[in-house]
Amino acid sequence: MRVFVEIAYDGTGYCGWQTQPNGPTIEEEIGKSIKKEFGQVVPVIGASRTDSGVHAFGNVAVFDIETKMPAHKIAFALNGRLPDDIKIVRSFQVEDEFHPRRCKCCKTYEYKIWNDIFGNPMNRLYTHLVYGAIDIEKMKEATQYIIGTHDFSSFCSKGSRITNRVRTIYSIEITQEKQLIKIQVNGNGFLYNMVRIMVGTLIKVGLEIIKPEDVKTIIESKDRQKAGPTAPAKGLTLIEIDYGDIVS
Amino acid sequence: MRVFVEIAYDGTGYCGWQTQPNGPTIEEEIGKSIKKEFGQVVPVIGASRTDSGVHAFGNVAVFDIETKMPAHKIAFALNGRLPDDIKIVRSFQVEDEFHPRRCKCCKTYEYKIWNDIFGNPMNRLYTHLVYGAIDIEKMKEATQYIIGTHDFSSFCSKGSRITNRVRTIYSIEITQEKQLIKIQVNGNGFLYNMVRIMVGTLIKVGLEIIKPEDVKTIIESKDRQKAGPTAPAKGLTLIEIDYGDIVS
Repeated sequence: MRVFVEIAYDGTGYCGWQTQPNGPTIEEEIGKSIKKEFGQVVPVIGASRTDSGVHAFGNVAVFDIETKMPAHKIAFALNGRLPDDIKIVRSFQVEDEFHPRRCKCCKTYEYKIWNDIFGNPMNRLYTHLVYGAIDIEKMKEATQYIIGTHDFSSFCSKGSRITNRVRTIYSIEITQEKQLIKIQVNGNGFLYNMVRIMVGTLIKVGLEIIKPEDVKTIIESKDRQKAGPTAPAKGLTLIEIDYGDIVS
Repeated sequence: MRVFVEIAYDGTGYCGWQTQPNGPTIEEEIGKSIKKEFGQVVPVIGASRTDSGVHAFGNVAVFDIETKMPAHKIAFALNGRLPDDIKIVRSFQVEDEFHPRRCKCCKTYEYKIWNDIFGNPMNRLYTHLVYGAIDIEKMKEATQYIIGTHDFSSFCSKGSRITNRVRTIYSIEITQEKQLIKIQVNGNGFLYNMVRIMVGTLIKVGLEIIKPEDVKTIIESKDRQKAGPTAPAKGLTLIEIDYGDIVS
């Protein structure tokens, strides 16, 4: 059967999702836990190949396994084999044809900024420290130019081979509680480093280095050089991937 | 001058506050940062000698230093020398006679429980995982027997040489947000492992292994064996030490 798993992980100690020679990855650890539990070496197909250091509450993967174990119990079995910084939130059976990167979905990312004169030791691994005072009202004003369907070439890292760079951002919510600023972005697809470049640009707006309306010009230019820097990976968490009625 | 510092730290990688041969400690790291910045080796007197693995937002220490640097700038200077998991929240000058363990104060601790069938990778270092369903109303009921002035021998680890075990607990607040349960305890002094044993006992109440009113009998027995287990260090954070008007 094809098993659908939702995965939470602290990306701090990993070289991202995808198996590679430089160090441990999430994909590799999940594959190892499957091998230990079921004695089968199977491909683990991830929905989002998160970068090194990026975290997740609800990344998605599927794999095919021969077992009599009910699908919903596979989460518990694998959690017993996985390290503390990777856990399966839930597991269930899906259609054999279901592919997590080929089905339409909505993704929600959250980026966390710690806006203070020094980092907070307790959340230093999950937030990006910004010293200068950020005006979140200015950031909110800028989001109107990002929300909607646009060619987001300006928010795409150079290495990307993808040619169609039109994506739709449904919402961007910015909230602040004392020094902690959260930026939650929901959209139908994201280019390489798109959220992190978007955040790097919004930070420049919040610090009043550029104006909210400059974001419109930046997007229209389709030029990565015009946008802000790529914000650090550790502030980013993939919160949820929603496949609607396809998966339930 | 005598400098008062408020310190936040992630205790995960440290053998507690007090300098000792087994590994790095908070006291040692602060001493090292003072030596690097001012070239002076001075004793660092901590208010609370937190155990290995315990965290803090507002532990307190004082040290004497000869410098022309204004006291409030010492926090910034030391933060530049300290590792990311220890930061000075603020610094100021106090009377030369001020001793953080000899002055009356109120301490606030917070204990965090993650009540789910598996640990959350993102807060695994700062919460204690409890599998069974916890009834926080039962826990709240039990707190009426703890609040007030009592001989807390039942909530004191055996190693302690302190003979007067009467302490006053002013308040215990228990809140829950989804799987996260927070227990905040405020009192005028705490015995060795007191909060952690109190929490271990409250967890037994929450899991309905013992009844709320059993906590009364446990305290009256003055017998450590009657209380619950010592909850793990990683769930505990020293939030604040309040010296009232003495320090401001």
